[in-house]
Amino acid sequence: MGPVTISRRFDFSASHRYYRDDWSEEENRRVFGLCALPNGHGHNYTLEVAVSGEPDPATGMVINLVDLKSAVEGVLVDFDHKHLNLDTPWFTDRQPTTENLAAVLWDRIADTLAGATLSRLRLYEADDLYVDYFGATA
Amino acid sequence: MGPVTISRRFDFSASHRYYRDDWSEEENRRVFGLCALPNGHGHNYTLEVAVSGEPDPATGMVINLVDLKSAVEGVLVDFDHKHLNLDTPWFTDRQPTTENLAAVLWDRIADTLAGATLSRLRLYEADDLYVDYFGATA
Amino acid sequence: MGPVTISRRFDFSASHRYYRDDWSEEENRRVFGLCALPNGHGHNYTLEVAVSGEPDPATGMVINLVDLKSAVEGVLVDFDHKHLNLDTPWFTDRQPTTENLAAVLWDRIADTLAGATLSRLRLYEADDLYVDYFGATA
Amino acid sequence: MGPVTISRRFDFSASHRYYRDDWSEEENRRVFGLCALPNGHGHNYTLEVAVSGEPDPATGMVINLVDLKSAVEGVLVDFDHKHLNLDTPWFTDRQPTTENLAAVLWDRIADTLAGATLSRLRLYEADDLYVDYFGATA
Amino acid sequence: MGPVTISRRFDFSASHRYYRDDWSEEENRRVFGLCALPNGHGHNYTLEVAVSGEPDPATGMVINLVDLKSAVEGVLVDFDHKHLNLDTPWFTDRQPTTENLAAVLWDRIADTLAGATLSRLRLYEADDLYVDYFGATA
Amino acid sequence: MGPVTISRRFDFSASHRYYRDDWSEEENRRVFGLCALPNGHGHNYTLEVAVSGEPDPATGMVINLVDLKSAVEGVLVDFDHKHLNLDTPWFTDRQPTTENLAAVLWDRIADTLAGATLSRLRLYEADDLYVDYFGATA
Repeated sequence: MGPVTISRRFDFSASHRYYRDDWSEEENRRVFGLCALPNGHGHNYTLEVAVSGEPDPATGMVINLVDLKSAVEGVLVDFDHKHLNLDTPWFTDRQPTTENLAAVLWDRIADTLAGATLSRLRLYEADDLYVDYFGATA
Repeated sequence: MGPVTISRRFDFSASHRYYRDDWSEEENRRVFGLCALPNGHGHNYTLEVAVSGEPDPATGMVINLVDLKSAVEGVLVDFDHKHLNLDTPWFTDRQPTTENLAAVLWDRIADTLAGATLSRLRLYEADDLYVDYFGATA
Repeated sequence: MGPVTISRRFDFSASHRYYRDDWSEEENRRVFGLCALPNGHGHNYTLEVAVSGEPDPATGMVINLVDLKSAVEGVLVDFDHKHLNLDTPWFTDRQPTTENLAAVLWDRIADTLAGATLSRLRLYEADDLYVDYFGATA
Repeated sequence: MGPVTISRRFDFSASHRYYRDDWSEEENRRVFGLCALPNGHGHNYTLEVAVSGEPDPATGMVINLVDLKSAVEGVLVDFDHKHLNLDTPWFTDRQPTTENLAAVLWDRIADTLAGATLSRLRLYEADDLYVDYFGATA
Repeated sequence: MGPVTISRRFDFSASHRYYRDDWSEEENRRVFGLCALPNGHGHNYTLEVAVSGEPDPATGMVINLVDLKSAVEGVLVDFDHKHLNLDTPWFTDRQPTTENLAAVLWDRIADTLAGATLSRLRLYEADDLYVDYFGATA
Repeated sequence: MGPVTISRRFDFSASHRYYRDDWSEEENRRVFGLCALPNGHGHNYTLEVAVSGEPDPATGMVINLVDLKSAVEGVLVDFDHKHLNLDTPWFTDRQPTTENLAAVLWDRIADTLAGATLSRLRLYEADDLYVDYFGATA
């Protein structure tokens, strides 16, 4: 029939802070604004995971959604209700922006989807702000 | 000016069941879960129909939305308030998954849009689950 | 401080049919329209469960959301992915309209919330259609 | 004509943690779950502020929305991008639950609306979870 | 069983302008801001019509939605795609604010619902701004 | 890491009319329907502005959202609360359709984003209707 992309949304909550130790306090506030405040703030993140391929003729499915849910939730448990800077190892040398968070999630999720092709991550930090990421080789 | 894609959403409700007669009851339940229950269940589907092209210089439109609405609703009348397995002819040899339903809708709708190019169907089975389909030759 | 109402949404999918055996086919179609078709159709239902009271001074909570989730999901398992007419015992002598379904859900859920006051159920049959129910004594 | 209630939504982001120092670590985790983690997590909050009254015959307005916006944003600046436990004075002796946060916001906002009647605050912690608060005397 | 309120949403688009001829240009701009500009601006309005009562035991319905739809759309045809100040007779002596528009719609719709009780109109001027109206005697 | 696209939504309200002076009244009504009415009607428009690129390693950002907000709002001030036909210079020789409005907005916004690549504009005229535009050379 032709390839189909199936997308499913997942929710998690986390907090973060944008701050560079090699910058002055003033420079941090000028570039990062309120996001540089010391105790951080938080968001409800929504992640859309898109998987592409020809549907299996036997099941009519690109991927069994039970498997997709299990794989993605197995990754998100390391981010949900966490402080991204303090509770996870991925943001010691880069800021936990939505852009960088999407790339971290891509690497974690792509590894878990044996046999299926991750084609896009869309990560909402708020209803009116989101990023699309297609992997390092896109 | 350059090509524009215009997308309009349509709603319909239907019920369906995932089940293969050549599989055991256990295999059906293992693969399809609650979707294999005998009497089916249902969804509010939302279909986004995307049509692309250069706007007509006289009208500023890629397609007159009255024509698009008429064409798509003429197709959806065969699906709305129906049981996809029992009341339609398209799912006798394939499962009525969102993936397969999108492909069936594509073939029906593309035929009705004389002169306009159907560029994407996005079919939501629920707020957090949707597929994108671009046709067999995409 | 004063009473607070906390509302949480839950989703389920089901199918149904409106039909009275003591009416002619014509009368059923005149009153129920497409909803009278023999094989039924379906919806994604969204249920908002509202619980009211003074927050517990120790926890700041009207009800622990883990308990609320457990109670409501324990009820919804009897409705999710079911055909309301054929797979449940509650619609043998009344139509499975959104109005009646809300009343059935109220009786089931109110019984499970020991110590908390169910104050409203809002049941969406679609994004643009919902009912509010406050119990038989409201 | 009769009273009208006008409601306007506002957004802010914050982080928080549920934890009682007079409880053991185990008790905190049993009651508050992931919300007891030490570094907190965060949310995009949405606040609906409802003001009621007879519209002014000269303007047709219950309240000038410029005034409402100014009053509410003047309050929310103390919460936006903050850690509710660490950066605000209101949660030293109570948990920063959505219930308690709504009551704190009520007291702050009601004081700023000279001449207009605050009739309800609806505070969303997430799309599927919100509280309604009507003041201490409701 | 107890009374049920059923609410259905309807959409229409219109333009309007806030301006008092008995005020100076400066006073109009001070009070009404951009809404006082001479050529008007517009909105997508969403109207939620709530009807309350005991469901009919025969049908399980508070009101047949086909009748509700017909009644409300029969009213909205006079507002849809219109300039509220110039194309309708209701705003010659009052401003077309959301508050006043809700009251006008109430009087028109309540008259058409023979046998059913209109219990609330909720009128959205935008996603983040709406009014609730309960009639002159509420 | 790979390119990221970041999208932010902006809202504005405007009114418009579709009409060609070189067509008869009948032809205008046949093609444009209610949109040809003399006094115009209006919409709440939502504009999604997508900017693409490699995130800056120092900040983790494709574009500083403060700069994006400032640039886009500096453009939208010429459209917000305006009548597109009467109050702006862009629709004297073309209809203010969503298609044409997207192209006008593209040219205005692309000029303001020094150093960043505008990759898509998505313009909603209503919740169920939107266009995507990628520039004249797309």
